[in-house]
Amino acid sequence: MTPQPAPPWQTSAWLNTDRPLSLEQLRGRVVLLHAFQMLCPGCVAQALPQAARVVQLFAGTPLAVVGLHTVFEHHAAMGPESLRAFVHEYGIRWPVGIDMPGADGGAIPRTMQAYAMQGTPTTVLIDALGRLRLQAFGHVEDLRLGAEIGVLLDEARRSPVAAGASEVPAASGA
Amino acid sequence: MTPQPAPPWQTSAWLNTDRPLSLEQLRGRVVLLHAFQMLCPGCVAQALPQAARVVQLFAGTPLAVVGLHTVFEHHAAMGPESLRAFVHEYGIRWPVGIDMPGADGGAIPRTMQAYAMQGTPTTVLIDALGRLRLQAFGHVEDLRLGAEIGVLLDEARRSPVAAGASEVPAASGA
Amino acid sequence: MTPQPAPPWQTSAWLNTDRPLSLEQLRGRVVLLHAFQMLCPGCVAQALPQAARVVQLFAGTPLAVVGLHTVFEHHAAMGPESLRAFVHEYGIRWPVGIDMPGADGGAIPRTMQAYAMQGTPTTVLIDALGRLRLQAFGHVEDLRLGAEIGVLLDEARRSPVAAGASEVPAASGA
Amino acid sequence: MTPQPAPPWQTSAWLNTDRPLSLEQLRGRVVLLHAFQMLCPGCVAQALPQAARVVQLFAGTPLAVVGLHTVFEHHAAMGPESLRAFVHEYGIRWPVGIDMPGADGGAIPRTMQAYAMQGTPTTVLIDALGRLRLQAFGHVEDLRLGAEIGVLLDEARRSPVAAGASEVPAASGA
Repeated sequence: MTPQPAPPWQTSAWLNTDRPLSLEQLRGRVVLLHAFQMLCPGCVAQALPQAARVVQLFAGTPLAVVGLHTVFEHHAAMGPESLRAFVHEYGIRWPVGIDMPGADGGAIPRTMQAYAMQGTPTTVLIDALGRLRLQAFGHVEDLRLGAEIGVLLDEARRSPVAAGASEVPAASGA
Repeated sequence: MTPQPAPPWQTSAWLNTDRPLSLEQLRGRVVLLHAFQMLCPGCVAQALPQAARVVQLFAGTPLAVVGLHTVFEHHAAMGPESLRAFVHEYGIRWPVGIDMPGADGGAIPRTMQAYAMQGTPTTVLIDALGRLRLQAFGHVEDLRLGAEIGVLLDEARRSPVAAGASEVPAASGA
Repeated sequence: MTPQPAPPWQTSAWLNTDRPLSLEQLRGRVVLLHAFQMLCPGCVAQALPQAARVVQLFAGTPLAVVGLHTVFEHHAAMGPESLRAFVHEYGIRWPVGIDMPGADGGAIPRTMQAYAMQGTPTTVLIDALGRLRLQAFGHVEDLRLGAEIGVLLDEARRSPVAAGASEVPAASGA
Repeated sequence: MTPQPAPPWQTSAWLNTDRPLSLEQLRGRVVLLHAFQMLCPGCVAQALPQAARVVQLFAGTPLAVVGLHTVFEHHAAMGPESLRAFVHEYGIRWPVGIDMPGADGGAIPRTMQAYAMQGTPTTVLIDALGRLRLQAFGHVEDLRLGAEIGVLLDEARRSPVAAGASEVPAASGA
């Protein structure tokens, strides 16, 4: 089965980055996109600490960790100002995009819909060519996530993509 | 040293109870009051799961578990509607009071000030006579909290307080 | 129901104490007796770390923590020399008695039989008067164990037993 | 730097396998060799549960998990009969070799010496060509171990080694 291009991200704002991120900009890098909601217990207890571990372990490699705030419930409690407080309190330093509200006032935001995510947390891996390689709802074991990332990084090393990979803003925090 | 009466609670609203709770109503019961903020990582990771364990373990005893939302930062992100979503998502079933905003627009809410709490989480134990017996900032080990509760429950059993202890609303969830 | 006297301990040797311990010697103290086997996974993962937490938290109180090695299977793998290596590697500093092998070569050692223990780990609480107050097979939550210990220590403080409680060897490690 | 061949294993006995395992037999497979001692707390708390997670996650892949009992202290407490009881109690189902005692009665066993291991636990990864690719003393994070295994499995898939990889005994338990 041939991997398909990952759908583009539709966002209304970004935290922890000077300019919006896009898949095109990140071409040449492996991308771990973790979709979460700030009031989702499984996201807070497992997915966010895991993202922080990934940021730390793979620092210095062509891996970008990107959060996506995909709010599909309790919208009033999880607006941009609340998210900003959350990101501050939890010490999240990597870029976080806010998924664009659904068309016609639908509850499901647009990127979440485009990826057909079932809920939060959802873990997405995109290879250096911009193709969707893993999408999983719920907790993904560290061992498995590590194995998937390892293979994609190895692919990226063996077939480097020339186009300006070094020009993107630093997408993995300290 | 003689234990002093616990300061009264000053609240603006309550969740998970039909009517506001007060120390007078709870006379005859040991009270575990846990002060928290919904965006405080230590509260979410440790203090709230501990409160849930206490509710479960001491069900059927004259112990009341009561939450107090003592917001002293990021006020806009932790208003009543946000708290309601949080309480729903985290499955909190015991009564939670919202500490009354500080006088003259001060950041520290009133009950938090009256108890001179240093931050969140803060764990407070009040005996069946309404006296303050323990106040601790930060995580309290389960063993220690259990020991303190055990002693206060034993005191309450040995010297029951007559006044209407059975008329208060059930303050310990399922 | 009136608590009954705890059965006497029948041991073949002791570690971490100059002379054998007995219930008589410990009269005036609350005793946490934890029965374990060095190759029992639940003992190693939960009961022993819990005993260490109890030793640390209740240092300075009239509580004695005592281990009892109740080997009822794999006898050849858990003899005294093996136990000594285990106690060293796991940093166990409190007294540990070796339960005396069963009469007529039976697999179940004698103290284990006298207490009718179902397996390991088993947690036993004995009050300052030498009476059996709790016996539980399997993991006991820290909150519950703390509550039980708290009550027994409070009893001991309210009705001190005169007889030589201070003469026993220190039974709680650093 | 070119990876070097992993030193051969020198063992005195094996558990959980009908016949001794050797690196030659396992050619064509990635090998996770974890060196441990049954009375080493870090091995019991972290390395063995991790090995069990690897066995489960990578079932169906050309990965072999192999334990090596490298006893360098408390020899009398960790002989073959003790190890057999330990393996039974901890539910270890993958092959475990017993490292051959050191020449001239030295404390360090022979394979441990040949690999110049610093202690236990030690994690070793050997690629499908029998070359040493990772050796780490102490705990290795699941994310990192997963990444290393992922790359070696991917290499093995891209350049399969013909020689009889399917003839070796099943080395990954259920």
